[in-house]
Amino acid sequence: MHIAITAGGTEESIDGVRKITNMSSGSLGWHCLDAVLSFMRKHNRSNFVVHYIKAPKAVTKKLSAKDAHCVSFVNVTNTQSVYDCIDSLMDKVKIDLFIHAMAISDFSYSYSASISALAEELYQSLITDKKVSKQKIEAILTNPIHKHDADEKISSSEKIIMGFETTPKVIALIKKKNRETFLVGFKLVKNNHDNNLIKQAEKLRMTNDCDAVFANEASQLSEEGHAGLLLYKGEIVARPVGKKQIAEAIVNLAMKHIS
Amino acid sequence: MHIAITAGGTEESIDGVRKITNMSSGSLGWHCLDAVLSFMRKHNRSNFVVHYIKAPKAVTKKLSAKDAHCVSFVNVTNTQSVYDCIDSLMDKVKIDLFIHAMAISDFSYSYSASISALAEELYQSLITDKKVSKQKIEAILTNPIHKHDADEKISSSEKIIMGFETTPKVIALIKKKNRETFLVGFKLVKNNHDNNLIKQAEKLRMTNDCDAVFANEASQLSEEGHAGLLLYKGEIVARPVGKKQIAEAIVNLAMKHIS
Repeated sequence: MHIAITAGGTEESIDGVRKITNMSSGSLGWHCLDAVLSFMRKHNRSNFVVHYIKAPKAVTKKLSAKDAHCVSFVNVTNTQSVYDCIDSLMDKVKIDLFIHAMAISDFSYSYSASISALAEELYQSLITDKKVSKQKIEAILTNPIHKHDADEKISSSEKIIMGFETTPKVIALIKKKNRETFLVGFKLVKNNHDNNLIKQAEKLRMTNDCDAVFANEASQLSEEGHAGLLLYKGEIVARPVGKKQIAEAIVNLAMKHIS
Repeated sequence: MHIAITAGGTEESIDGVRKITNMSSGSLGWHCLDAVLSFMRKHNRSNFVVHYIKAPKAVTKKLSAKDAHCVSFVNVTNTQSVYDCIDSLMDKVKIDLFIHAMAISDFSYSYSASISALAEELYQSLITDKKVSKQKIEAILTNPIHKHDADEKISSSEKIIMGFETTPKVIALIKKKNRETFLVGFKLVKNNHDNNLIKQAEKLRMTNDCDAVFANEASQLSEEGHAGLLLYKGEIVARPVGKKQIAEAIVNLAMKHIS
């Protein structure tokens, strides 16, 4: 059996010194690994591999030699590297269960420019072309001529602007690579007004063909108090509290359907 | 004696989930703390306090009970919090030595907007006002009407732009608060073409009235191989290699001048 778990928050480099990170300790991902290893021990199974795909700052703990033997660690950095890693992993092995707990950046850095220089560029383009179109403005905002050079010292006394591209959709890749993989997605919402949590979880499931979704709210993420809903094909099947309990609920649900 | 050390990279929150961080492990800052504690042990001094101002991800190690007694940890997050912390600390105590090793963000997040919505806003402002000025464009780029709401779900399928404000200059504050503080600044440059390292170090010293500057290049930051120049009032006084050696060179230089 092959299991993949993604954990932590991706990092998008801005200029080699600064980066944009997605806040995620990777703790829930690690609990999922723990829960898989416990399940396997309990059922006397050793013929399995967990492919643990981890972001740079994702927490890792010590594993026993026996457990370590069943885990293959793969280090990733930005969204593109996660995409490439999964693409190549799923070409090589048949993943039975994919727990996609990583917080993935939707955007990657494209450029930075001083607001003043960008305003000047837009202004010049207007005075030379009185019939400037929205498309032309959008093209300048997407890729201005007066952006900072990669090697340029950015003045710390001028307001700046940064442009971002969208990144490839990682979760959508998983079922495309293998329809049979049991896919667990995670949905973090900022607030749960108007049943937003379930609505967003359903949207994630429908768009990416998840089998299960764990949905949670940003205000409820502490180690002991971490709470949320576990949905299987759109139905609530558990309301676990605590990261360990969440991980166990996810792994038990998945194992019931794939073992 | 009061010593302040700043360590690690600041974090500027974007939306509570994403943040911009400055890459710095805080390792050199910790070595400076170690070097101060060693120096004090060696000279049988115990009547001192190190105010260790640390960014969220800055590395910390275990201290002996005796050492821990002499260190006061202060947690900071973004640039503004570092500024406020130093401002208030230096109101309360006379800092003899300030080792400012923290990587501080020059910019803080102001807004995000879809590039398409921002282009539309600029376009509308042009067609309604044929004599639009550069100032008007700059005002829109600084604070557009069509920015994302704090609570809004940002579409992951549209290119976005983010605006940034400048942050207060932390290093410039130190000598303003106390002319007598021995100030050690750090300059990291991307490349050392044309003696750039010394030029940038001198600029940092002149602008912020540093007594000493440690100048280093981004390509030379590994634990053992970390190399750079230690300058005292503009003159090279050491070329230490290795983080431990750098920290010792800095602390020995400072102690010679303040003890």
